[in-house]
Amino acid sequence: MPNAILLISCPDKKGIIANLSNFIYKYNGNIENLDQHIDYETNTFFTRIEWNLKNFKLNREEIPKNFSKIANNFKMKFSLDFTDNIINMVVFSSKFTHCLYDIILRYKEGQFKVNLPFIISIHPNTTKVAKIFDIPVFEFKINDKNRLKVEKEQLALLKKENINLIVLARYTRILSKQFINNFKNKIINIHHSFLPAFIGNNPYEQAYARGVKIIGATSHYVTYKLDAGPIIEQDIIRVSHKDTLKDLKRKGKDLEKLVLSRAIRWHLERKILVYNNKTVIFD
Amino acid sequence: MPNAILLISCPDKKGIIANLSNFIYKYNGNIENLDQHIDYETNTFFTRIEWNLKNFKLNREEIPKNFSKIANNFKMKFSLDFTDNIINMVVFSSKFTHCLYDIILRYKEGQFKVNLPFIISIHPNTTKVAKIFDIPVFEFKINDKNRLKVEKEQLALLKKENINLIVLARYTRILSKQFINNFKNKIINIHHSFLPAFIGNNPYEQAYARGVKIIGATSHYVTYKLDAGPIIEQDIIRVSHKDTLKDLKRKGKDLEKLVLSRAIRWHLERKILVYNNKTVIFD
Amino acid sequence: MPNAILLISCPDKKGIIANLSNFIYKYNGNIENLDQHIDYETNTFFTRIEWNLKNFKLNREEIPKNFSKIANNFKMKFSLDFTDNIINMVVFSSKFTHCLYDIILRYKEGQFKVNLPFIISIHPNTTKVAKIFDIPVFEFKINDKNRLKVEKEQLALLKKENINLIVLARYTRILSKQFINNFKNKIINIHHSFLPAFIGNNPYEQAYARGVKIIGATSHYVTYKLDAGPIIEQDIIRVSHKDTLKDLKRKGKDLEKLVLSRAIRWHLERKILVYNNKTVIFD
Amino acid sequence: MPNAILLISCPDKKGIIANLSNFIYKYNGNIENLDQHIDYETNTFFTRIEWNLKNFKLNREEIPKNFSKIANNFKMKFSLDFTDNIINMVVFSSKFTHCLYDIILRYKEGQFKVNLPFIISIHPNTTKVAKIFDIPVFEFKINDKNRLKVEKEQLALLKKENINLIVLARYTRILSKQFINNFKNKIINIHHSFLPAFIGNNPYEQAYARGVKIIGATSHYVTYKLDAGPIIEQDIIRVSHKDTLKDLKRKGKDLEKLVLSRAIRWHLERKILVYNNKTVIFD
Repeated sequence: MPNAILLISCPDKKGIIANLSNFIYKYNGNIENLDQHIDYETNTFFTRIEWNLKNFKLNREEIPKNFSKIANNFKMKFSLDFTDNIINMVVFSSKFTHCLYDIILRYKEGQFKVNLPFIISIHPNTTKVAKIFDIPVFEFKINDKNRLKVEKEQLALLKKENINLIVLARYTRILSKQFINNFKNKIINIHHSFLPAFIGNNPYEQAYARGVKIIGATSHYVTYKLDAGPIIEQDIIRVSHKDTLKDLKRKGKDLEKLVLSRAIRWHLERKILVYNNKTVIFD
Repeated sequence: MPNAILLISCPDKKGIIANLSNFIYKYNGNIENLDQHIDYETNTFFTRIEWNLKNFKLNREEIPKNFSKIANNFKMKFSLDFTDNIINMVVFSSKFTHCLYDIILRYKEGQFKVNLPFIISIHPNTTKVAKIFDIPVFEFKINDKNRLKVEKEQLALLKKENINLIVLARYTRILSKQFINNFKNKIINIHHSFLPAFIGNNPYEQAYARGVKIIGATSHYVTYKLDAGPIIEQDIIRVSHKDTLKDLKRKGKDLEKLVLSRAIRWHLERKILVYNNKTVIFD
Repeated sequence: MPNAILLISCPDKKGIIANLSNFIYKYNGNIENLDQHIDYETNTFFTRIEWNLKNFKLNREEIPKNFSKIANNFKMKFSLDFTDNIINMVVFSSKFTHCLYDIILRYKEGQFKVNLPFIISIHPNTTKVAKIFDIPVFEFKINDKNRLKVEKEQLALLKKENINLIVLARYTRILSKQFINNFKNKIINIHHSFLPAFIGNNPYEQAYARGVKIIGATSHYVTYKLDAGPIIEQDIIRVSHKDTLKDLKRKGKDLEKLVLSRAIRWHLERKILVYNNKTVIFD
Repeated sequence: MPNAILLISCPDKKGIIANLSNFIYKYNGNIENLDQHIDYETNTFFTRIEWNLKNFKLNREEIPKNFSKIANNFKMKFSLDFTDNIINMVVFSSKFTHCLYDIILRYKEGQFKVNLPFIISIHPNTTKVAKIFDIPVFEFKINDKNRLKVEKEQLALLKKENINLIVLARYTRILSKQFINNFKNKIINIHHSFLPAFIGNNPYEQAYARGVKIIGATSHYVTYKLDAGPIIEQDIIRVSHKDTLKDLKRKGKDLEKLVLSRAIRWHLERKILVYNNKTVIFD
């Protein structure tokens, strides 16, 4: 039997967990996971509760209605989801395909519980990878002039397949506000630096010029402001004066794959709550 | 106002969190922290709940009695504690004093909320450090013959001051079963290797001989079996062929301090549950 | 123009570097890289010198003869190689193909300067991966009875193609002494633990049972004794009580890929010297 | 017998190592360590050679004169030093004393081969620590008005004792250009962030606000531009949404100590070459 997952944020107050757990217990649910966090600066309570639906006395449609009384009482923002409600994910990819390969292989291996109905390509390299694995792919020739038009075509494809997660796997085009508006906290990007250091283009070149001893990668949700969205995950690797720019790029690729795949996994498992341009990761 | 902390383990069953949180809510407590974990192999539920006692309607003595009904219902093993119930910790130390220094400095700085009434020394180096910081110290001349007698004297000192945490900071004597029996899961040792590799004496020598590329340190609760108790924390650092045995020891010292101090912190914050010779760290 | 690479070990003595660098300078070579190391316990000198052959006045065949006088003088063991002398590598792989995929993708991307004429498979999974990338593959049905016979057939294939590097990418069969004798320090294995902890079968199961807080992977040259050969590289990742055995295996896979690929890279770049069952990595 | 150390940079050309090693061999020196690096972007050659002076036929004063011919030939910038030429180091410290403690303890333990004739304090906390260990200390009351005057007094003290290394151990005052001019590449600062992220004041506050998942520390030589000097070492530690600002500061302290102590060690061992606002670390 699948699990239900509630992600909740609200002002902190006595009785929240009691009310939540009573609600689940009352209808005969067994809590498999409960994580909570309080941000004392803003007095905000966050929780993620996951319970098994076996013998749960409410069917899925009835849960929100029955839960709304508690939610209203505590002024909760909440999202309800189910573990068998598989997310439809699309990967946007361009010339560098290491992240795309990594995602596909994890998907094939069963590491990601997700649908991957197609891939958006803006470079033949990506198209080729998709074809190796027999995954449908739409290739766009994009440039500064046609980019809004292309976005519209992409958007149509996404809507048609009910896509609710976009992964920018070293995608090289900046998305428009209009596009982003359709996917709030549903676009994950990998930036090849340790943000907020080295924002924008050529982060490895910037890192190399600065002579850092560690390079990093950052996965984050895409917001209007470039490379400034809520950070989901970061990781680093040591470099030295012996490492050329080429070495930095090679080492960085391994980082990018790891950091992006962790972000995808947490998103798919509904473990991420966004607030104040930050993330709570209930891992 | 201080917090109350409940550490609980019991067979997993529906309604545990509901009953726990209701109990706290009913008496007007505000949960500040709730962590839980289920071990599906043994179907065991673990939790750590921390709530503020401000306006809590039960006084401290009444809590266990009132809670016992729930505890019995769910066959819980539980321990109740309060954040203003300061632990009395003693450090056992010998020739190498880097961990001792580290603990004292963290203590002086307020990182550890703990009493440190005295230090047990079996080497003049340790005695000297204690004196630098005006901490009472008892120095014992210990050898293979008198060790049980010395242990008894140490035990008397510990009992007198109600010591409930012993930290072996590179202490070089193996404690007897009788001694350990008095402090179950209350003796933290630092072993200077990545356990279970390099058990026993001279782990750096062993690591050097094996040619490892990474060395480690492990903090664990002391049990009868040498270096085989529940692991609390581990960390590592890279080494290379350039590192001599002396370098390994130098690098390792930094590790030992970090790994031991994390274990002490978690213990003091009642964040550790031991089961099956493993630890659950509710951090 | 390609580079020449000399890997040398000898008793330490005055004048080694002077003689080596004079030799190269005399024949008009430009040193691009020189690394050295002295093991003071055994008074052994190690070096790796790489110089460009542009305008070098000796041709390749003449180098050893002309160098032998110096080598004899200093009782050197040396190996001479050239960067355009591409190594013929074969991957042995079985059910788990993550390392195989990783190697192939790095190879395709140009990260490994190597020939990969074919793959040895003992499981349909491996065969399938090889076919996706159009790499020749030989699949063997191996069991306890026929394993020596299969080894002979494998050996014949390896000899035929002048294979001088074997990578065991989660290969599940122990190689015989006779087989290993043909490839001294030329078989790289990935062991899915932090050696010397958890030798042999099921290291993740062992790590899980012990309750470690960090898991590791180790790449090493294969010797007669199981998982006891010279360690080339190790790396680790943190785990917690929340991680199931399945999580350990998933996290470990990422480690295995990284640790194995680094070992392959260093081997291909002739950066590894083996002595005393240890490695010097001139990176 | 002590060692001589040559740190050299020059345009890359054939014969550099041959000439260097011949020079040492000719006068009967035994090379204990030779590291080199070529920056192909600027065609610059760097090396660090260390040889034992036992039976070396030139006395110390004669070395530069005799070496100058080679140096001129190859347009070398070089510095010559001797391992028994102990550096005179002074620590500048203020309110936060964790780095100061760490340096003193390493010094007392013999990890740093250095003289520490006195400490410059601008806060009673620092003065107190110095006194605990009976190290002379000069306390200055510094403010925006008197800072240049204080600097002059500090400078006089430094000159008097031939100080040739200044360590800013969480020193809270920016040094003037005039002051820095006296100690080019001889002032090591610890900045409590992963530079170039979070330059200037309150880096932990900045990191907390940005919601990073990793915090760092950076040691670097001080130049005119704030936090922009050549980076010597960096390290990081993971943080999560659970970590408060206070936790970041606590975790960061451990980083700062490690990162600063590594920089000091490398500097004392003459392992650092600065060029192009970067460092080559011959470790």
